[in-house]
Amino acid sequence: GVLGSGDFARSLAVRLVCSGFKVVVGSRNPKRKASLFPAAAEVTFQAEAVKKADVIFVAIFREHYSTLCDLADVLVGKILVDVSNNTEINHHKESNAEYLASLFPACTVVKAFNVVSAWTLQSGARDGNKQVLICSNNQEAKRIVAEIAQVMGFTPVDMGCMSSACEIENIPLRLLPAWKIPIFLALGLFLCFFTYNLIRQVIHPYIREQKNKLYKIPIEVVNTTLPCVSYVMLSLVYLPGVLAACSQLYYGTKYRRFPDWLDQWLQHRKQIGLLSFFCAALHAVYSLCLPMRRSHRYLLIETAVKQAVEKKMTIWVEEEVWRMEIYISVGIIALGLLSLLAITSLPSIANSLNWREFSFIQ
Amino acid sequence: GVLGSGDFARSLAVRLVCSGFKVVVGSRNPKRKASLFPAAAEVTFQAEAVKKADVIFVAIFREHYSTLCDLADVLVGKILVDVSNNTEINHHKESNAEYLASLFPACTVVKAFNVVSAWTLQSGARDGNKQVLICSNNQEAKRIVAEIAQVMGFTPVDMGCMSSACEIENIPLRLLPAWKIPIFLALGLFLCFFTYNLIRQVIHPYIREQKNKLYKIPIEVVNTTLPCVSYVMLSLVYLPGVLAACSQLYYGTKYRRFPDWLDQWLQHRKQIGLLSFFCAALHAVYSLCLPMRRSHRYLLIETAVKQAVEKKMTIWVEEEVWRMEIYISVGIIALGLLSLLAITSLPSIANSLNWREFSFIQ
Amino acid sequence: GVLGSGDFARSLAVRLVCSGFKVVVGSRNPKRKASLFPAAAEVTFQAEAVKKADVIFVAIFREHYSTLCDLADVLVGKILVDVSNNTEINHHKESNAEYLASLFPACTVVKAFNVVSAWTLQSGARDGNKQVLICSNNQEAKRIVAEIAQVMGFTPVDMGCMSSACEIENIPLRLLPAWKIPIFLALGLFLCFFTYNLIRQVIHPYIREQKNKLYKIPIEVVNTTLPCVSYVMLSLVYLPGVLAACSQLYYGTKYRRFPDWLDQWLQHRKQIGLLSFFCAALHAVYSLCLPMRRSHRYLLIETAVKQAVEKKMTIWVEEEVWRMEIYISVGIIALGLLSLLAITSLPSIANSLNWREFSFIQ
Repeated sequence: GVLGSGDFARSLAVRLVCSGFKVVVGSRNPKRKASLFPAAAEVTFQAEAVKKADVIFVAIFREHYSTLCDLADVLVGKILVDVSNNTEINHHKESNAEYLASLFPACTVVKAFNVVSAWTLQSGARDGNKQVLICSNNQEAKRIVAEIAQVMGFTPVDMGCMSSACEIENIPLRLLPAWKIPIFLALGLFLCFFTYNLIRQVIHPYIREQKNKLYKIPIEVVNTTLPCVSYVMLSLVYLPGVLAACSQLYYGTKYRRFPDWLDQWLQHRKQIGLLSFFCAALHAVYSLCLPMRRSHRYLLIETAVKQAVEKKMTIWVEEEVWRMEIYISVGIIALGLLSLLAITSLPSIANSLNWREFSFIQ
Repeated sequence: GVLGSGDFARSLAVRLVCSGFKVVVGSRNPKRKASLFPAAAEVTFQAEAVKKADVIFVAIFREHYSTLCDLADVLVGKILVDVSNNTEINHHKESNAEYLASLFPACTVVKAFNVVSAWTLQSGARDGNKQVLICSNNQEAKRIVAEIAQVMGFTPVDMGCMSSACEIENIPLRLLPAWKIPIFLALGLFLCFFTYNLIRQVIHPYIREQKNKLYKIPIEVVNTTLPCVSYVMLSLVYLPGVLAACSQLYYGTKYRRFPDWLDQWLQHRKQIGLLSFFCAALHAVYSLCLPMRRSHRYLLIETAVKQAVEKKMTIWVEEEVWRMEIYISVGIIALGLLSLLAITSLPSIANSLNWREFSFIQ
Repeated sequence: GVLGSGDFARSLAVRLVCSGFKVVVGSRNPKRKASLFPAAAEVTFQAEAVKKADVIFVAIFREHYSTLCDLADVLVGKILVDVSNNTEINHHKESNAEYLASLFPACTVVKAFNVVSAWTLQSGARDGNKQVLICSNNQEAKRIVAEIAQVMGFTPVDMGCMSSACEIENIPLRLLPAWKIPIFLALGLFLCFFTYNLIRQVIHPYIREQKNKLYKIPIEVVNTTLPCVSYVMLSLVYLPGVLAACSQLYYGTKYRRFPDWLDQWLQHRKQIGLLSFFCAALHAVYSLCLPMRRSHRYLLIETAVKQAVEKKMTIWVEEEVWRMEIYISVGIIALGLLSLLAITSLPSIANSLNWREFSFIQ
C-alpha cells in the first residue's frame, strides 16, 4: 500500500508494480488522482487501501502525518514505512520516523527508502548498486521491508534500531561534506601564494623601476601561483600517512585510535589529491596559452627589432634553451603520472582493481 | 535446460553452471557438440534434455522454432524462456516470444535475457548491475525466471504481460537514439556558423581587397565557429527548464503533461550539454594550436622585419594586451567549470552524489 | 561466528551485523578485544563462540590454523569459511582452504570472501557490484555461504569444488597481468623509434655538418617518436581481428579454437588501444608545448633579424602554410575520435551501451 500522491508516491508505485508486487494506492480523491498512477496499481480511498495492504508506504509530508489519525483503527498491526526527508539538517527534535511511531503506537514503523530519489526509483537501479538504509525496532518488519527492497533491485542495509532514523534522514541533506575542508584549504593556499607572486612580479618592479606590469595579473601571476598550490596539496596527501605510521611505531600498536585531527586528515586525502591534480592541470593549460597572447607577440617583435637595428645576429643562450626543454619535458611527465592517479580514482576504475594493483599505482 | 549450441547457449550454460544450477543441454548432435560446453553440463538429445528440465531456455533462431514441433509432446507444461533477438527493429509482425507461444500453446512462455550479451553472461555481471527485462502472461513462471536471473547476479525487472515482448526485443537493436537529434542539431548549427564565418573571413576580403586568405579555412574559420555552436547548445540546455517552469506556472499545476516537443527536449539536455562541452574542448585545442602554425610564424617575422626597416621601436598596444589576457583567463575558467559538469555526468560519479549535491554542481 | 580479531575479522563482523545477522566472535582474550568489535556482536572465548555458531569464518593466518586443533571436538559438523589470502602466488603446495580441510576432516570447508578487502566489507558494496567467489566440495555448505554473501550485498559466484581454492587465492595477488605485455611492447617500440629519430635528427647533422642539435633530445625527438609508437600500437589493435577472421574463413568454422598467441593478442586489444591513445595524447601535449620553448623564440628572432638586415620583406611559403594547417586540423580530429574511443572504454560508460552501439562507436 502507498499513501500519498506526490512524485515519490507515484515513482514508488511504478517501481513496485514493475517488480511484480500488487500495489494499492490510498488517496483522499482517488478519482482525480487515478490517472497519475500506473494502470496496474489500484487507486482507492485511504481507509480502503490500508485495509487491503500489510506494508504501507507513508509518502506524505511530516506536517500531514496527523491527518492519518482518522485511520488509526484500520492501521493497527500494519507495518508503516516512513520514506520522508527533511529540508534542513536536524530541523525537528525527533526524527520523522520516531514522530510517526509516537502517533501510531499500535503500528510497526520502519524507516527506509528516503536515500533513494524519485528519479532513481522510476529509472531503476540501473547503473550502480544503490543502497537502501533501513532501521526499525522490530526485526521482523525490518526483514520484510529489506526483502521488498531487494526484489526492487536495491541493496538493503540494516542500520539497527529506530534511534538511527535521525542519522538516516540527514544523509540526503549532506552537501559534499568531504570537499569542504580541502576546497577552503586550496583557496587559502591560493590566496597566500597569489599575494606573494603579485608583490614579487608586479608591485615590486613598479615601485623599484616604475615598470607597469599590471597586465601580468590575470595569467602570469595566476600561472606561477597554481603549481605552488598543487605542490603543497600533493605533499599534504602523503604527509598524514607518514604521521600515522610514526604514531603506530611510537605507540607500538595498530589498534590505538588516531587523534581526531589525523583521522579527519587521512579521510580527506583523496579530495586533496584531486584538487592538487586540478591545479596542476590548470597550470598546464595556462602555460600552453602563454604564446597565444598579444603581449608575448609584442615582446618577441620588439626584441627582434632591437636586435636588427643593432645588427646583433645571434641571441642563442644554450643554458636558457636547456633549462626550458628540461622544465617542459619533466612537467609533461609529471602531468601524465598525475592523470593516471586521477583516472584510477574514478569509482568504476577503482572497483576493477584489486588492493595490490591500487597500491602499486598509488 | 538449454536448447541450442550457439554462442549464447554456451555462455548461458557456463553462467548457469557457475551459479550452481544443474544444466542439461539439448542438441541434435550431442556427441559433436559436447566439447563446446562446460564439463558440469550434461549434453544430450533434445527430447532427453526437455524431459529432465522444468525451465527450458530456447537459444535458437526464430527461423528454427518450427523444428521443435517434434518435441511438442514432451514440452507440455514446461516453462520456455525465449532469449532471441531480431536483426532489425519490428522485423516481424508479432514478437519472437509471441510466435513461440503460438507454436506451443501448452507451454508457458517467458521473454527474458535477450538484453544481456553472450559476453556479459560469460564474464559475469562484474562491473555494474545489469538488468534482465522479463515479461510473460504467467505470474508464477515469471517469478521462477526472475529468481534464476537474481541467482545469476542480474537484476530482474518485471515488464508485465507478453505484449511487452516486442518492446523488449527492440531494446538491443537501438542505436544511441538519445544522441541522434542533438548530433544533427550540432551539425546544422556548425554548418550555418561555418558558412557565415567563411564569408566574413575569407570570401569578403577576397572580393573587396583581392586578398588570398584561403589558408584560414581548416583552422581559423573552424576555430571561430566552434564557440558559437558551443554557446547556442549550452543555452539550449537551460532553455527548456525555463519553458517548463513557465508552463507549470501558467497552468498552475505540476501534474499536467508537458507537450511532446518539450518533453523530448527536456530528455535530451544531457546529450546537448555534452556536445556543447565537446565543442568547447575542441575550441580550446584549436586555439592552443594557433601559435604552432607556419602562418603565425611568417606573419610575426614579416611584422618584425617591417618594423625594423622602418625603425619603429615600439608596437605595444596596452588595450590589445589586456583584451587578450582577459579573454584567455575567462576562457580557461569556463572550460574548467564545463569539465567539472562533464565529469559529474559520468554514470559512476553521478551515482555517488545525492540529489542535493548533483543540483548544487549543476 | 567469526574467529580472529584482525582488521578483516572486525570488518566482517561489522558487515554481518549491518546485514542483520547475529554475530558471535571467538577470541583468546575476549575482554581485551571486545572494544574493537561493534556492540551488537557478542565477543567471547573461542570454544564458546564455536558452540553457538553454525557457520564459522576463520579469519586468522594460515600459520595459526594449528592453534585451532584444541577446538576440534566442538567444530565437528560446522561449516568453516576460509577467508585467508597468501602473500605470494603459489607460496604453499596446497591452498590454505585445502590445508584447513585436512586439519579438520569432520568439518565442511568453504573458500569465500578472500577477494573482498576489509575496506570494501566495511564501506559496503556501494559503488559497483562486487563478486564473491565461492568453492567447496559440499553443495549445501556452498549454498548457505552464497546466501550470506547475497544478503551482505555481494554477488556470489560458484567456482566449483575445493580444487579451485588455489586459483581463487591467487586472484587478489595478481598485478595488472593484462597490462604487462602491452607496456613492454610500447616501451620496446619507443626505444626503437627513439634511437632512429635520435640518429636522424641529432647525430647525423652533428657528424655531417658539425651542428650541435643536442637540445632537441628531451622534446623534439620524443615528440616525433610518440606518434610512430601510437600508429604501430593502433594497427596492432585491429590486426588480430583480421587474422582471426582469416583463420575462421580458412578453416570454415567458428568453433575451432584460435592458436594461443592469437587468443592472447585478441584479449590484450583494449590495453594496447589505451596505450596508443596515451601516446597520441602525450604527442598532442608535446606539440602544443613547442612554441613555448626558448629555442623556438630564439630561432624566430634570428630569422627576423637576418631578414631585416638583408631587407627581404616576404618569407611567406604558401605550400608550407597549407601543409601545417592541414596537418594540425587532421591531428585534432584524430585525437578527438581517439578520445571518444577511450571514454567509451570506461567501465561505467561501456555498461550503459548495448552491443550494437558499442561496435558502432568502435
